[in-house]
Amino acid sequence: MENISMNKCDLLFDFYEIAQSNGFFANGIDETVVWFDMFYRPAKELGGFCIMAGVETFAQYIKNLKFSEEDLEFLKSKGMGAEFIDYLRNFSFTCDIWAVPEGTPIFANEPVIKVHGPIIQAQMLETIILLTVNHQSLIATKANRIVRAAQGREIIEYGSRRAHGIAAALNGARSAYIGGCCETTNVSASKQYSIPLFGSMSHTWVHMFDSEYEAFTAFAKLYPDDCVLLIDTYDTMDKGLPNAIKAFNDVLVPMNKRPKGVRIDSGDLAYLSKKIRRVLNEAGFPDCNIYACNSLDEYIIRDMLQNGARIDSFLVGERLITSASNPVMNGVYKLSAVEKDSRIIPKIKISENVSKITTPYPKLLWRLFDNETGKAIADVLTMEDEDLSDCNEYELFDPDYTWKKKTVSNFVARQLLVKIFDNGKLIYSFPSPKEIRNYCAEQIDTLWEEVVRFEYPHNYYVDLSQKLWNKKHELIDECFN
Amino acid sequence: MENISMNKCDLLFDFYEIAQSNGFFANGIDETVVWFDMFYRPAKELGGFCIMAGVETFAQYIKNLKFSEEDLEFLKSKGMGAEFIDYLRNFSFTCDIWAVPEGTPIFANEPVIKVHGPIIQAQMLETIILLTVNHQSLIATKANRIVRAAQGREIIEYGSRRAHGIAAALNGARSAYIGGCCETTNVSASKQYSIPLFGSMSHTWVHMFDSEYEAFTAFAKLYPDDCVLLIDTYDTMDKGLPNAIKAFNDVLVPMNKRPKGVRIDSGDLAYLSKKIRRVLNEAGFPDCNIYACNSLDEYIIRDMLQNGARIDSFLVGERLITSASNPVMNGVYKLSAVEKDSRIIPKIKISENVSKITTPYPKLLWRLFDNETGKAIADVLTMEDEDLSDCNEYELFDPDYTWKKKTVSNFVARQLLVKIFDNGKLIYSFPSPKEIRNYCAEQIDTLWEEVVRFEYPHNYYVDLSQKLWNKKHELIDECFN
Repeated sequence: MENISMNKCDLLFDFYEIAQSNGFFANGIDETVVWFDMFYRPAKELGGFCIMAGVETFAQYIKNLKFSEEDLEFLKSKGMGAEFIDYLRNFSFTCDIWAVPEGTPIFANEPVIKVHGPIIQAQMLETIILLTVNHQSLIATKANRIVRAAQGREIIEYGSRRAHGIAAALNGARSAYIGGCCETTNVSASKQYSIPLFGSMSHTWVHMFDSEYEAFTAFAKLYPDDCVLLIDTYDTMDKGLPNAIKAFNDVLVPMNKRPKGVRIDSGDLAYLSKKIRRVLNEAGFPDCNIYACNSLDEYIIRDMLQNGARIDSFLVGERLITSASNPVMNGVYKLSAVEKDSRIIPKIKISENVSKITTPYPKLLWRLFDNETGKAIADVLTMEDEDLSDCNEYELFDPDYTWKKKTVSNFVARQLLVKIFDNGKLIYSFPSPKEIRNYCAEQIDTLWEEVVRFEYPHNYYVDLSQKLWNKKHELIDECFN
Repeated sequence: MENISMNKCDLLFDFYEIAQSNGFFANGIDETVVWFDMFYRPAKELGGFCIMAGVETFAQYIKNLKFSEEDLEFLKSKGMGAEFIDYLRNFSFTCDIWAVPEGTPIFANEPVIKVHGPIIQAQMLETIILLTVNHQSLIATKANRIVRAAQGREIIEYGSRRAHGIAAALNGARSAYIGGCCETTNVSASKQYSIPLFGSMSHTWVHMFDSEYEAFTAFAKLYPDDCVLLIDTYDTMDKGLPNAIKAFNDVLVPMNKRPKGVRIDSGDLAYLSKKIRRVLNEAGFPDCNIYACNSLDEYIIRDMLQNGARIDSFLVGERLITSASNPVMNGVYKLSAVEKDSRIIPKIKISENVSKITTPYPKLLWRLFDNETGKAIADVLTMEDEDLSDCNEYELFDPDYTWKKKTVSNFVARQLLVKIFDNGKLIYSFPSPKEIRNYCAEQIDTLWEEVVRFEYPHNYYVDLSQKLWNKKHELIDECFN
């Protein structure tokens, strides 16, 4: 029985990828070895950096990539040649892929994925790589912003109902967890990714009983260890809260249990939370948490906390799971070089939009950490034959305003790109979402506060080595001569 | 071999849905029959109406809903009772569901899905219904806005790489087609939903040849019937366009073929398109279309056409597939009534946010069409025992400003909600995406231009019958006494 809610995901390509691969085949250049980079273009609303995510999803997709006879029939009907179809029938993946590990802070215009292999294969990976990394990095980044706004208070992801479909809900919950959310309300995501699960009650529960008080006592009896009561069905301060306190006293206290919390999702959350806190404290429940939700994001949470809101846990839904203030991550996948007779022919995309000019050549991506503070100083892109790991001193310079220079010393340089496919074989062992989440938090700590700021962050250096800069500008000059 | 790129989609619930169903079971009210409505709350950036979509996806999900032993183990570990687990093990769906058919224009605050059945089941459908209808209606709505902006020119959906995961790309392509896009670039969506497929070339194709001219001739030879050349890799007017014209003359003209088009995706598209049009016409290719893309949406397309842009086909990506200007549709799922001893007990959610007050009772949704013009006059919600189909005259009144009244006559009233599940059995035969797309275009034509306007549209009436209004206000009065 077919279940269209889980779409078949074969042939997940933009047609030009297939049509071009067919063309490379027809022109006898299908085995030409090439290099591609994925990098993202800056988006103001995402702040000064993003959190890498989505690598495991595309790696599994590629690992399992094959073409059914039905797929091949379809491609044939679209004009693809018989020999190319045969090639796909016996498809065997042979590329090398490097990726920055999930959870790592990444910056605009640096290669976070690098692909090396025959053009016929490397071209076909474009959509699946972009699709997964753009989406999941976007949500991890947004989640991390919201988590930082809450200054140590819990963020619970509950966006499924407004996510862009089933995969967006599930991968979104995983990405939100990586970015620092502590729990999800999505049962399937909790099960698949071992994310702690959160649940309380909805207004329907209250409506199903003859009174709010009966609804509360029934819930407290059933879930005495996890008792979070929703108190805004009728009137938060005059009905909901007194009924909740009475239920706590009548059911939980005799059982020697403590209430976990009360929840509000309408009205002015900051104002109500302060009033609720006072009443709960006076009633002998200073340990009862206040949960709040209602179209929250990092800006509203920051402002509510500045208002003195007494909220302990924020449930964040639609604005997290869609990254509503900036729902697009602009990752792109660009050819950087072609190999010909064992030589590297660099490739550059020139554009009238200067920001769209790419950086040619296969590259290494280095992050320099200060030995004294442990903080990240800069990222540097180099040619593949440059090694910064044994440098004592290094001169950084701005690739656009080249007179801006700075010499750094006493640092350690680490490569960020890790090989995950070797000659088509998946060789990387993926950490668990929990491990990625811990790693992410550690790595965020290596960034200066000024880089992490929500708005108008300090510009983190992503520089080119002198050698790479020279070679890039030679090519630009050639194009304009 | 497991493929995590297709997440398992079992247990696609928010935990409170399961925890409450367990609670209904434990409290012996699991078989209480209830009524739920799904409706959406207005969002300014989506305009005055939305396009219904996503019904087939959730219907298939529900049809196939079952719980594996692994799922049940997981739920047990989260504290669900043994008898409830047994209930799920033998789960058999028995609800009735009505839905407004996909492709229909829908308005805020009217029920577009109605569910009737035992609370233990009806409660569990919340997330899956909202998730699919919110997402797919959002994209269909955005696509329709973009299609309208293009005033008859083609809109091609090519957003996969920026979609929120695989399902968002596929269901998004289907929704965009329903909303009026004519083609997609996603191969899988084309195959699954029979959407016409579009492909051209990328900059990589150009880079793989020794010169732009060679790249163009190779492409023209291979795809003489579908020859769209990307002309902005180096320099659009001085290199790309002359090379394209030369390739058309050298390859296509001798074959007696006509070029399909040229494509640009950078620079000022309006300005360039006018220059390109002139040059193509002078070169004898007035029938060669101009394709353009670069972060387009309805506002940019409208403005470019006002600038006199000579673009024939727009490729629209990220801002369509994410509905970037408004990436959230605020659909909600609310209890409207409970049946007790064969009586209907209405349920209402009172809120300090007045716009969040719900309309109680099981309802019918009627659309009144003027017999003379064929245009939609108003939607009316009534009690289930009211029949507008044989009315000759009807008095409409604004449910908030009740003194605003209007009597209409010479109309036909049609019910919009169609039964799709009867006692748990799927009884609806879903039309094809193409049929839905045609139906959608017809239905949009029944709306007055003023209702369809992008910004500050005329407010379409969604009224309550006098009987329903009275009963709703009785309940509100009760709550505040």
